[in-house]
Amino acid sequence: MAKEITSREENYSQWYNDLVVKSGLAEQSPVRGCMVIKPYGYAIWEKMQSVLDGMFKETGAQNAYFPLFIPKSFFSREAEHVAGFAKECAVVTHHRLMNDPNGNGIVVDPDAKLEEELIVRPTSETIIWSTYKNWIKSWRDLPIMCNQWANVVRWEMRTRLFLRTSEFLWQEGHTAHATAEEAQAEAERMVHVYAEFAREYLALPVVIGHKSPNERFAGALDTLTIEAMMQDGKALQAGTSHFLGQNFAKSFDVQYTDKEGNQQYVWATSWGASTRLMGALVMAHGDDNGLVLPPRLAPIQVVMVPIFKTGEEHAAIIDKMTALKQELEVKGHSVKIDDRDTLRPGFKFAEWELKGVPVRLAIGPRDLGNGTVEVHRRDTMEKKTVAIDGLADSIESLLADMQRNIYKKAFDFRAAHVEKCDDWNEFKEKIGTGKFLLCHWDGTAETEQKIKDETKATIRCIPVDSFVCEEEGNDIYSGKPSHQRVIFAISY
Amino acid sequence: MAKEITSREENYSQWYNDLVVKSGLAEQSPVRGCMVIKPYGYAIWEKMQSVLDGMFKETGAQNAYFPLFIPKSFFSREAEHVAGFAKECAVVTHHRLMNDPNGNGIVVDPDAKLEEELIVRPTSETIIWSTYKNWIKSWRDLPIMCNQWANVVRWEMRTRLFLRTSEFLWQEGHTAHATAEEAQAEAERMVHVYAEFAREYLALPVVIGHKSPNERFAGALDTLTIEAMMQDGKALQAGTSHFLGQNFAKSFDVQYTDKEGNQQYVWATSWGASTRLMGALVMAHGDDNGLVLPPRLAPIQVVMVPIFKTGEEHAAIIDKMTALKQELEVKGHSVKIDDRDTLRPGFKFAEWELKGVPVRLAIGPRDLGNGTVEVHRRDTMEKKTVAIDGLADSIESLLADMQRNIYKKAFDFRAAHVEKCDDWNEFKEKIGTGKFLLCHWDGTAETEQKIKDETKATIRCIPVDSFVCEEEGNDIYSGKPSHQRVIFAISY
Repeated sequence: MAKEITSREENYSQWYNDLVVKSGLAEQSPVRGCMVIKPYGYAIWEKMQSVLDGMFKETGAQNAYFPLFIPKSFFSREAEHVAGFAKECAVVTHHRLMNDPNGNGIVVDPDAKLEEELIVRPTSETIIWSTYKNWIKSWRDLPIMCNQWANVVRWEMRTRLFLRTSEFLWQEGHTAHATAEEAQAEAERMVHVYAEFAREYLALPVVIGHKSPNERFAGALDTLTIEAMMQDGKALQAGTSHFLGQNFAKSFDVQYTDKEGNQQYVWATSWGASTRLMGALVMAHGDDNGLVLPPRLAPIQVVMVPIFKTGEEHAAIIDKMTALKQELEVKGHSVKIDDRDTLRPGFKFAEWELKGVPVRLAIGPRDLGNGTVEVHRRDTMEKKTVAIDGLADSIESLLADMQRNIYKKAFDFRAAHVEKCDDWNEFKEKIGTGKFLLCHWDGTAETEQKIKDETKATIRCIPVDSFVCEEEGNDIYSGKPSHQRVIFAISY
Repeated sequence: MAKEITSREENYSQWYNDLVVKSGLAEQSPVRGCMVIKPYGYAIWEKMQSVLDGMFKETGAQNAYFPLFIPKSFFSREAEHVAGFAKECAVVTHHRLMNDPNGNGIVVDPDAKLEEELIVRPTSETIIWSTYKNWIKSWRDLPIMCNQWANVVRWEMRTRLFLRTSEFLWQEGHTAHATAEEAQAEAERMVHVYAEFAREYLALPVVIGHKSPNERFAGALDTLTIEAMMQDGKALQAGTSHFLGQNFAKSFDVQYTDKEGNQQYVWATSWGASTRLMGALVMAHGDDNGLVLPPRLAPIQVVMVPIFKTGEEHAAIIDKMTALKQELEVKGHSVKIDDRDTLRPGFKFAEWELKGVPVRLAIGPRDLGNGTVEVHRRDTMEKKTVAIDGLADSIESLLADMQRNIYKKAFDFRAAHVEKCDDWNEFKEKIGTGKFLLCHWDGTAETEQKIKDETKATIRCIPVDSFVCEEEGNDIYSGKPSHQRVIFAISY
């Protein structure tokens, strides 16, 4: 084996970390809570960015870039937002270093203290709405739909690669609309964009739903989310879209003149997804051999490993592979020939399995004579020997099949781990065993909090497009009347 | 006119600012020294990124991402680097805000002081080389060629949009090699990538050259640069590539085992280009009507403006335009039909001229009958009426011609403003009039400094691929023997 991986059964959390680190996606940096995204991990992130960016632009959004720093006072403007975001953050207080007068290296120059501290953005609503104020005068200026790809910082005490880091990469869309209806429609459109991306590319069967008030974004009137189930049955929030009402417009006094000449506050949304999606990808599909990448996001879709004894065999095999590579590249697949001369084929096999490359082709001397190739698919670990003629076509359909199969596997897994629950004792027994429990909830923050205190479970969402949840019943905890089941789960 | 622009003659600096702000590229943000890059400006930056990223990847570089923050102590490791970079920077000292106990909003929590201050990266050599230490063990691990697209912060007292801002966007490549020769070849390869990009896409006739020791990157043994001339005859450094020797490898103890089993320090390069390129684009080609964008970087290459009186005319014209748009899009051009109903054609014309859109097509009722279109090219402001049949083909060659013409205009301008100078009094007279002066230099930092003190001129580079500079002579200032002319200029 290339690298030892802890099995999921032995230690799920260590398994996750092993996959991320040993497959070369990311590693801890010398800076507390910040990660280094390594080239292989970043190549996947680039694919995600490219697809999402195209989807955003199709909705009419445009990219822009706003400052990294936010004046401290901006956070105080929106009362709920400050409570949610202005706590654990990186605070810039000085703008100069100097040589220590006592000769101990470099120190902060006490004369270079900023008049007002700057916060490294944890999210950009405040700085963006202070900017939109100058962009919006009339109804003709609306809607504004800007997205930015950026780094943000939220100081975290306990971090996990991709899932929770002090600095992470994300995109944040911020839109301004003339009416509440338009803004709500935008928030819904964007959560559907995330869901489509998750399902079609990440091969993640996500649930779309509304957050309960407790779990909403700080400053939002409504938060829509996509929630995915990981292989330990825990929930992972993979993207959110917020209807912000007029809160930020009022905090930053952003008004427009409507067609009748009246001044109106603008309506807002924001929506974001982050490098956390990388964590979801690893956790949802990986196995004890390593990553299992959905073909549509795999930086290398097909890897070829030559098996040979003589130089002649090697040359003939590499020739075949080069021709095949060209054929596959014409079809838009990314292909790598692993011709490293210092490693045995078995070692290479394990390494590419660890890295989750969807298809592995091996050609040996016998294949040369027979006109065959050994085809290995990563998702099922099945191997078969097939004719090299027509291989490019069959690889194309194999990749499509794998994309579907990885989705189906995750879908079936989730289906096997979702159940309705109407009994509090049963809830307490089952919630820690890795399940989404569909339960009645009385709609109060109080009940939600009590359930969280007793079990650590939270309401992941009030589903809108998965599971049949609208029915009358009684709250699992309080027994009060309820009109709808919601998803309770332990979450990342 | 859409918006009043100061003319270049009246006030070159204000003209630049007008172009940037009024064409919608960028604006000042509420945060001192930080800019907002607006959608139109960001769309150009995205095109630059996309082209450069492809060119980097062709050389074998891969993208990755390293932390925003750098521990203060890292800067002390490389002696020259600290002098160059650890001075004016953003220093994070705390990680939490709290409600003011006296009720005055939020304040920095004094209990949340960091043990070691973190610096917002001004450049990433130190954090990256501390990471490479773990990646490099053997000669087999080399070369490593990583690039990152990121934001960096260098605290600036006097800022100008794109040209000098406290936060800016850039890419920084960092490569590690087994030998000095390989690293030097990499540094040269990359400066040629920048030059090719500048010439082919930005339409900028740049000079490739070496920086004098005074002007080198802090910590480099050699800095290669591309220097462009702006319309005021000043020089703008548009990209640099550094041969860093073993300085960072030694500071961070990065050694590899060579094929003979010996431990060797690794050789390094770094190379970068930033949103400053946006400033170069504006300053090199703009005119008193606004931006002049080279077609290959224009977010909108062709804009169409309908001219009509009746609804019938309008419908017929929009039909024609829609068909034409499709034809042009098939050829890969980006096209916009400006069908805003509240603005007169003249206003629209001025606005698209301001935004530098290469080609404007206008169709009026008479054109409908005649089967013609009015074609206006932004670079020369020439207008002609041509047949609509075959227009898509002629637009394609028109765009190619404009790309060449914009380059040629800049090339001719530079040629008219470069001269050899061998007399110190003449130098002092001419250097402030907007020229590159090719002068002999004795190779000492002392002479360079004296010339700078007396005239503000610096050695922009020792050219390697433009102008014939290798000849014997005497230093323009000291009179000492010199073997090569260098470029002196006032710079941005």
